Amino acid sequence: MHPIDTALANLGITLPDAPAPAANYVPFVQVGNLVHISGQISQNAAGLIKGRVGETLDVAEGAEAARCCAVSLLAQLKKACGGDWARLDRAVKLVGFVNSTPEFTDQPKVINGASDLMVAVLGDAGRHARSAVSAASLPLGVAVEIEAIFALK
Amino acid sequence: MHPIDTALANLGITLPDAPAPAANYVPFVQVGNLVHISGQISQNAAGLIKGRVGETLDVAEGAEAARCCAVSLLAQLKKACGGDWARLDRAVKLVGFVNSTPEFTDQPKVINGASDLMVAVLGDAGRHARSAVSAASLPLGVAVEIEAIFALK
Amino acid sequence: MHPIDTALANLGITLPDAPAPAANYVPFVQVGNLVHISGQISQNAAGLIKGRVGETLDVAEGAEAARCCAVSLLAQLKKACGGDWARLDRAVKLVGFVNSTPEFTDQPKVINGASDLMVAVLGDAGRHARSAVSAASLPLGVAVEIEAIFALK
Repeated sequence: MHPIDTALANLGITLPDAPAPAANYVPFVQVGNLVHISGQISQNAAGLIKGRVGETLDVAEGAEAARCCAVSLLAQLKKACGGDWARLDRAVKLVGFVNSTPEFTDQPKVINGASDLMVAVLGDAGRHARSAVSAASLPLGVAVEIEAIFALK
Repeated sequence: MHPIDTALANLGITLPDAPAPAANYVPFVQVGNLVHISGQISQNAAGLIKGRVGETLDVAEGAEAARCCAVSLLAQLKKACGGDWARLDRAVKLVGFVNSTPEFTDQPKVINGASDLMVAVLGDAGRHARSAVSAASLPLGVAVEIEAIFALK
Repeated sequence: MHPIDTALANLGITLPDAPAPAANYVPFVQVGNLVHISGQISQNAAGLIKGRVGETLDVAEGAEAARCCAVSLLAQLKKACGGDWARLDRAVKLVGFVNSTPEFTDQPKVINGASDLMVAVLGDAGRHARSAVSAASLPLGVAVEIEAIFALK
């Protein structure tokens, strides 16, 4: 069992089927050794995680939503690796968009929900450059959307 | 005639002169085989397409604005290819920003205006990773701004 | 003295210690010859530059905040170069997020504060692709956040 699958199991995470967008865009594109993954919206097995941080969600709920985006990113990443984690080099970059009130200023604490999971699952290979900002609103009213770049070997 | 030019002609699209920003940034930068194209704001031959989706514009009008951003991206891309579409490998990534109300949740339908045009013109090479979010506001009051990465051969 | 250090000295700019984020993300990741730098928030020796452009800050104050983000980006870039500017190839891309009112439409003039500094310090190698949008809000209430990609030789 690959250490990444062990880490996922230890965290009680089962990666979902990598969701496929229903439009003329695709979940990820690999060019050279870089994989660009489409923005993943906050959802889990129970459905979409909607709401606005600072209004209907607090920071901890926002961070949990961000963690769910990270789970979806990992599902897409595993698919991009053809199911073989040994092909992964490292995380490169996350951009996190938080659905928040104009007064909200804890975007980094929200997106840490994703950053922390990356390192918990991928170890040092999970450390990444990052931006965390608020969006005026997000698709379907979700709380968080995160896109990513990873490097394969 | 290259199939991409045929597709553009069949769609009745004449690519505009690739607009050159009037500042210390440039329309695109190629590094290795990747071309990073600056955010293109919604405009056509009649001028800027301004407005806020969910307020002064509906989804269809937003999608048309996004389509116009895609036309500008294609104009910059053709310039990046030195006018020779045979140098294009594929679309890699779009990030679309929608000028919308805080209640608006159909960002994907708006940005589909750009994604659909990419595939209509470039075929399978036009499929791309994508993020679609709302911005609190956009330059000059435009409805949509889209940036892109393409790969050349 | 490298011309870039001369340009910085002539502008009276001392690069700060490249700030290290206190989380599971890192200031920059190099993959191949590309350096992805995390979003840098507006701050200078006096502290964070907070506020909302169009409300508590005017365009010139926003541009100064953007310039400070660019100074932080250059500090991270120098660190990514191991202190040796000769390793820099060029700037590739900036994405600038402005904390503004929904009515604000001069995002490009704000982000020019960063773009102009890049070219003042790096010369032609500082010209970059760019997007400039407004965020609904930014971490810690800062006025501007800018992320960047640079190419090394």
